[in-house]
Formats: sequence, structure tokens, C-alpha cells
Amino acid sequence: MIIIGELINASRKAVGTAIEAQDAAAIQKVAQDQDNAGADFIDVNAGIFVGKEPEYLKWLVETVQAVSDKPCAIDSPDPKAIETALAVHKGTPMINSISLEKDRYENLMPIVAGTDLKVIALCMSDEGMPETVDDRMKIADKLVNGLLKNNVKLENIYVDPLVQPMSVNNAFGMEFINTIEKIVTTFQGIHTACGLSNISYGLPARKFMNQTFMVMAIAKGLDGAIMNPLDKKMMANIIAAEALAGKDNFCMNYLKAFRAGMFDF
Amino acid sequence: MIIIGELINASRKAVGTAIEAQDAAAIQKVAQDQDNAGADFIDVNAGIFVGKEPEYLKWLVETVQAVSDKPCAIDSPDPKAIETALAVHKGTPMINSISLEKDRYENLMPIVAGTDLKVIALCMSDEGMPETVDDRMKIADKLVNGLLKNNVKLENIYVDPLVQPMSVNNAFGMEFINTIEKIVTTFQGIHTACGLSNISYGLPARKFMNQTFMVMAIAKGLDGAIMNPLDKKMMANIIAAEALAGKDNFCMNYLKAFRAGMFDF
Repeated sequence: MIIIGELINASRKAVGTAIEAQDAAAIQKVAQDQDNAGADFIDVNAGIFVGKEPEYLKWLVETVQAVSDKPCAIDSPDPKAIETALAVHKGTPMINSISLEKDRYENLMPIVAGTDLKVIALCMSDEGMPETVDDRMKIADKLVNGLLKNNVKLENIYVDPLVQPMSVNNAFGMEFINTIEKIVTTFQGIHTACGLSNISYGLPARKFMNQTFMVMAIAKGLDGAIMNPLDKKMMANIIAAEALAGKDNFCMNYLKAFRAGMFDF
Repeated sequence: MIIIGELINASRKAVGTAIEAQDAAAIQKVAQDQDNAGADFIDVNAGIFVGKEPEYLKWLVETVQAVSDKPCAIDSPDPKAIETALAVHKGTPMINSISLEKDRYENLMPIVAGTDLKVIALCMSDEGMPETVDDRMKIADKLVNGLLKNNVKLENIYVDPLVQPMSVNNAFGMEFINTIEKIVTTFQGIHTACGLSNISYGLPARKFMNQTFMVMAIAKGLDGAIMNPLDKKMMANIIAAEALAGKDNFCMNYLKAFRAGMFDF
């Protein structure tokens, strides 16, 4: 499972404050905690700061990379902010995210075209939010084929089918995970990645529902998640589900997690 | 989810002792507890008592039905024991189970042919334990078509693809749940049912692994389980997974379980 640590996001109050105060130590602690907990990418987002996003995003990349070897996921729809951040990033980051919305597609495609950047391809278009597997696959087909035509390698694409809340329509859970399954069988070698917590919006016991949904999505082929790697129960669920999905040779990770007390709850 | 309560099994020491002592109150408590906890069928098994199995199985059915309206799952490969139990059973029980093993198939088919009995069809043959999806589907095809030819309705068949331990081969989890998916898409309207706990044999934190595997199987279409309905964490996992699988209108069961404190762990 590719884990994209989501905590360095300016919309979280403590992080927004730290960014404005240019408090490098505060940001670096969040980066290191996520790195130690198993994040593969450290997401950086300064989206709330209109006008200052490029400057702040660049500062976040430099600040995070001073203490962590993990690449960043550069989380912005703004080409100027992304390019400013890319100019200082060492190694190969992820772009979070391109979509089929016209402006976003046309702005971001030139940035990723012909590169080795990893890119999240969000199943969203100007026609609104997709609801069914077919809605999502129509967008995914155009997005993936567009990226391939622009010389982005299949294995660098992470499709996000866009979770919608169960409380709105009780078919939304299956429509989402059936899309995961269809994507990984249609485009063999591609990845999927998404934030799942919207699934439980409006319902109680959200953490438990989110963990359960993660396990179901892994059963259908999900191999990437934008999440809080400090959530130990979620990590335990992922480790067990990946072992059961045959992605953990000799259950080594599972056994290591057991010995570390990760299943003690 | 059709829940087949597995606790009245003579191989469990307390139950075996109660059967031998003809201690109806002890058996009835286990039956009522499972009924109250949500069991749809009460499994009865007296398999360890060679020679006395028919007599004891009959007594178990009568004893259970004196306190529970739930039908029994008559758990035996022995046609004489099953017929003796069937003779006293009120309502429509389940037979657990027919398989493709020659003797078992030939002995049990005449019992279920042309009836409204529900029947578990275990993916086992004289050629040994199936390992892959294909192994299992070959057996399932023969079993299901054999039952249909003998006028057992599709909706009364519960295919059990036979779980094998992850510790033996780390592909066994996916081979099992991919079979579930293939069965429910190949035979639309059929059911699946199985005991899952073998998956974790030889590994630590078995309960957590079993819960995780249950959720993955539900994502793939599992709709029946032979299990301990008194296991509250397992029940909570099933309730959340079924809501997410779109099988719980307006999440009513999920909300009821939340209010009853079932997710407080």
C-alpha cells in the first residue's frame, strides 16, 4: 500500500498557523511522525493562502525535505504553485491531482507530460460528481489515455475514483469499490489512491466505518491511500488486509506488526 | 447476511458433555443466546458420537426447537442421522453439507432432491482440497448443476468455497474471495456461506485477521457465514460491511447497532 500522509494541510488549524508563522519545527515534527509511521509520500497543501500559495508550498517542500527522505505529494490545482514547489523538490514527487475538469486538465497536463512525476488522476469532470461505476470509468478512460498520450507511464498514474457519502445513497460504497476493481483490471499495472473518509460523512462511528471501507477497497484492489498514517487502527487494518490480499510475503509485515503490538486493541 | 450459529457442536467440550448428559437446559441456553444475538439458523452437530449420532441429532433438534423459532442447520454427512433429525424438525432447516465427494453426494442428494430444504454445497471432491478459483469453480459447477437437476432451487443453495490457511500459501485468501465473487456473478440469485476461521490458522491475532477477512469476503459478495454470533466484534464488522455493501437500507441496522453500543471498542 502506498500511503500518502495527509496531515500537512493548511486547512488543519495547527498546520495553517505554523505555515503562516513559518514555524519549520512544527511542520517538521508532523513530517517526521508520518515518515516514521510508514508514509511513502508526505502531502503538502497550502491551498487556503490565496496569492501566497506558491511561496508557502515551496517553503513546505524545503522544510519537509530537510528532515525526511520521503518524496512529497504536491497538493494543489494551481500550475504556478506546483511549478514553484517542483523547482526545489529533490527526487520524484507526486502531483495531487489532475482531473478532467477543463482548466485543471489543461493547466496540469503540460507539467506532468513526458516526466517521471507520479500523478493522482481524480475522476472529476465539469459535468459534476460521478455516481456510478460507468460515470467514473468514462472519466478514468479519458484521463488515463490522455496521460498515456502525453508520455506519462501507466505505473506512475494513481486513479482516484472519488468517494461519495453512503448517507446520500447506500449504493455509493459499492459503486466506488467496484470502480477500483474495474480500473485495476482494465489498466493492468496502474495504481489507485484516494481519501476514503467521505464515505462515512453524516454517519456515527466514522472511524470504524472508514476502517471497514478501507479493508473492502483493498479486497477490490486498492493499493494507495491518502490518509493519516498516525491512525494506528487504520494502519493495523491495512496491514491485515494486505496480508490477506496476498501482498505480504510470508506475512512478514503482519507478523512484525503483531510483535510491535499493533493489533493490541 | 445469513448467520448460521455454530456453537452447538459436540466437538466443543461443554456441548459434548451436555449432549451425553442429555442436559437440555445447557443446550437451550446456547440456542437462545445465539438466537438473541442474531443467528438465522442454529447449527446442530453430534458428529463425535459414533453410533449414537442419529439419536443425539434428533434430540438436539427437539431441544433447540422447544426454545427457538429459528430453523436448525443439520450438520452431518450421515444420511441416517440427517433423516432422523429431519423427521422431527418443524419448518425448513438447512443441510450442512453436501459435497462432490462421491459417497457424500450420492447419500445426500436423494434427501434434498425436490425439497425446499436449504443446502450448503461444499467445494470439496475426492480429488482433494481445491486451491485456486478454477479448482473451486469446477467443483461448484458440478455441485450446483447437480442440485438444480435434482430440483433444488438456486436460491436454496449456499456454496461454501472452502477456506484454506494463509500460513500455507499467501494466495489462499484471494483465491477464496475471488471464488465468492465468481460464484455470485455466475449463478445469479445463489447464496454463499462458509466458516472463515481457518484462514488465520497458524498466525497470531487470529480474531482480528478473521474479522478483516470477513469484511473482505463481504466486499466480494459473501452473504452467509457459519460463525459464533456471540462474537460482538465480528458482528460489528459484518454490520458495518453490509451497510457499506449497500445491503442495509438507510443504514438502519448500522444506526441501530451504533445506538446499542456495538461499535464501542
